[in-house]
Amino acid sequence: MPNNLSVDGNRLWGTIEASAAIGRGPNGGLRRLTLTDEDKQMRDVLARWAGEAGFPVRVDQLGNMFVRREGQQPELPPVLIGSHLDTQAAGGRFDGILGVLGGLEILRTLDDSGIATRRAIEVVNWTNEEGARFYPPMLSSLVFAGKESVRWAEDRTDKAGVRLGDELARIGYRGDAPVGNQPVDAYFELHIEQGPKLEAAGILVGIVTGGFPTRGMRIDIVGETAHVGPTPMERRKNALVGASHVAVAVDEIGWRYSSGEGKTTAARLDLWPNLPGIISERASLFCDMRHPDPAMLERMVSDLDTALPDCARRSRCSVVIAERWGFGGLAFDGGLIALLREAAADLGHATLDLQSEAGHDAYNMASLCPAAMIFTPCKDGISHNEQEDMTRADALPAANVLLRATLERASR
Amino acid sequence: MPNNLSVDGNRLWGTIEASAAIGRGPNGGLRRLTLTDEDKQMRDVLARWAGEAGFPVRVDQLGNMFVRREGQQPELPPVLIGSHLDTQAAGGRFDGILGVLGGLEILRTLDDSGIATRRAIEVVNWTNEEGARFYPPMLSSLVFAGKESVRWAEDRTDKAGVRLGDELARIGYRGDAPVGNQPVDAYFELHIEQGPKLEAAGILVGIVTGGFPTRGMRIDIVGETAHVGPTPMERRKNALVGASHVAVAVDEIGWRYSSGEGKTTAARLDLWPNLPGIISERASLFCDMRHPDPAMLERMVSDLDTALPDCARRSRCSVVIAERWGFGGLAFDGGLIALLREAAADLGHATLDLQSEAGHDAYNMASLCPAAMIFTPCKDGISHNEQEDMTRADALPAANVLLRATLERASR
Repeated sequence: MPNNLSVDGNRLWGTIEASAAIGRGPNGGLRRLTLTDEDKQMRDVLARWAGEAGFPVRVDQLGNMFVRREGQQPELPPVLIGSHLDTQAAGGRFDGILGVLGGLEILRTLDDSGIATRRAIEVVNWTNEEGARFYPPMLSSLVFAGKESVRWAEDRTDKAGVRLGDELARIGYRGDAPVGNQPVDAYFELHIEQGPKLEAAGILVGIVTGGFPTRGMRIDIVGETAHVGPTPMERRKNALVGASHVAVAVDEIGWRYSSGEGKTTAARLDLWPNLPGIISERASLFCDMRHPDPAMLERMVSDLDTALPDCARRSRCSVVIAERWGFGGLAFDGGLIALLREAAADLGHATLDLQSEAGHDAYNMASLCPAAMIFTPCKDGISHNEQEDMTRADALPAANVLLRATLERASR
Repeated sequence: MPNNLSVDGNRLWGTIEASAAIGRGPNGGLRRLTLTDEDKQMRDVLARWAGEAGFPVRVDQLGNMFVRREGQQPELPPVLIGSHLDTQAAGGRFDGILGVLGGLEILRTLDDSGIATRRAIEVVNWTNEEGARFYPPMLSSLVFAGKESVRWAEDRTDKAGVRLGDELARIGYRGDAPVGNQPVDAYFELHIEQGPKLEAAGILVGIVTGGFPTRGMRIDIVGETAHVGPTPMERRKNALVGASHVAVAVDEIGWRYSSGEGKTTAARLDLWPNLPGIISERASLFCDMRHPDPAMLERMVSDLDTALPDCARRSRCSVVIAERWGFGGLAFDGGLIALLREAAADLGHATLDLQSEAGHDAYNMASLCPAAMIFTPCKDGISHNEQEDMTRADALPAANVLLRATLERASR
């Protein structure tokens, strides 16, 4: 393999800047929620770029887009490079986007260099990775990995009650291809770190060895509506107060384990009726907890279980964990990680081993095929924020490492 | 005055039951938010009842309805009996409704008995008393009392951004009469207690001497969006956590003063973006505090001022009281209270002196003319809840006391 093989940094950056103009947020970031008009516009641009380069695009029943560069043996399972073009409600210009457009740039680079690969390489844009509109996040890769059905995904609704399936049809991205049910040789995902470690270490290539074990829960708090005035304190059952006790308890658990990199989030709180003159009857609090050590994570979860009765007692509400979920806690494929390490070594880039602390579609893919991730730094570790930023110079080493590793794997 | 003059309990209860069928809630109460189709339907029914009895109805520019029984000297300022027909999002069948329909029953009783009064008596249905749809509550009486403009009220918007003025026009209740700017001789309001004291004392007539001093505030919490995963605890500024610390602090202050009848409510919390994958940047918490002793109320407010820096420190957010308001802390008119006491004594009803702990339009009217309120018990003190309940037998003594006091005042 030629050591001077390199992606075109200007071209890659041009696609990222074009993406940054579609669904621009008020503070310079992006608000491109999945299956909105802005998402459709970005999908159309990706399809156009692919078409111009001669790469066919396959769209499956959940709107996942597969940009294919054919291999010499089309019948072999392809190598996938994937991420997502949807963003948070107040998201950045790189989260997910770097992975998809970096993948496209890799396909273009291979074309420019006239390099044929034995296996096809496909760049995937996953629908609804963020979960900012439809719950849960990483929804389509979950279905792709066979863990939920297409019908289940189509029936997810956003806060306004709109079905995912209807929005897919509305923007014209309900394709014909089945979701998943196809052999995949390997899955790579290039992503910004979304944390501060690479920047702090002054290292540009993060080798992601696995994902932080993550546990999430929806906690339902039920009190009773009553008048905010005459109702004596001892008769009040304010679900907002109950949820607040829980949110504080969740946050305190995060601090208790923070020296070991434990983290907790009280992320979303839905209240009813949530009006000024009436005590709220119902609350649902969505929380998550992360720790690199699964045993410590179990202790965090158990700390919350211990704290909840006190939250119930202090608010006189019922407090119940109504739903639990988890992801992460997996190790990525040793073979793919070795490929990434070798490629970095060949290119003379120092690397830092990291665990991903966010969720990624790569987690779902890891249950289906060998999967691995590679991280770039991002400015101040800021993400899911319009200020999310990175430089082109910080993006290129990882993109080139991925280019080499992909080429190696696809030639296998 | 004949001691056997009495409202028709069956007729009164019939109107309350007819009202209870318009906007019925899922649990037997009412959900009749102001200026909705249900509110229009109820207004139409009131207008029909008034018309059938020969009482003209005047509608002012804010949709306040005045059902007038003419006096012998029409040029004299009238005596007003008022309350509201709108309800909370999950409200009861009596809150406000008893006052308006009790007033109508008083007019009908005077007609039946062929009693003429020197002054006209008008029954008022105030628009948007609850504040459950448009903020603030007691909105129209505020304008009637000259404290805000009609334009200001018209421009209030609900959570969906719909203007009050547009909804008034839509349901056909934007009248021509100016709001306020007219002399009023006296204002009476009959209401359920919405608290447990009358029931506990076994007394059916509450003489309301004034209103609990009440202070409200909107507290704005500003943090920073960030990823719920990789962001280290010490970099998080979660507005949901900040708001939760404040809500807990508010609640704890209520408990600290509860033995002296102090009360606090963390009533409404608005969050943004309030999504599972992102830390929330902004929160607005609407709180209120009540205490019968104004000096103690000031201490409660000052306790909160003291607590907020700690809420800010623990959440690393900015926490600011962005808006403050107050109501209550007033004494009702001694002359009207004396009339109510005498009427109760004449009828042989024991009375209990109470302060109102809820807000009422009577507070605004008290700045304009002599005003007073009379309470009935309600079951278990429950209000702003679909289970709100009372018996006809518990309603009649206060209605009859008000009938006598009104007749006395209107004959003056």
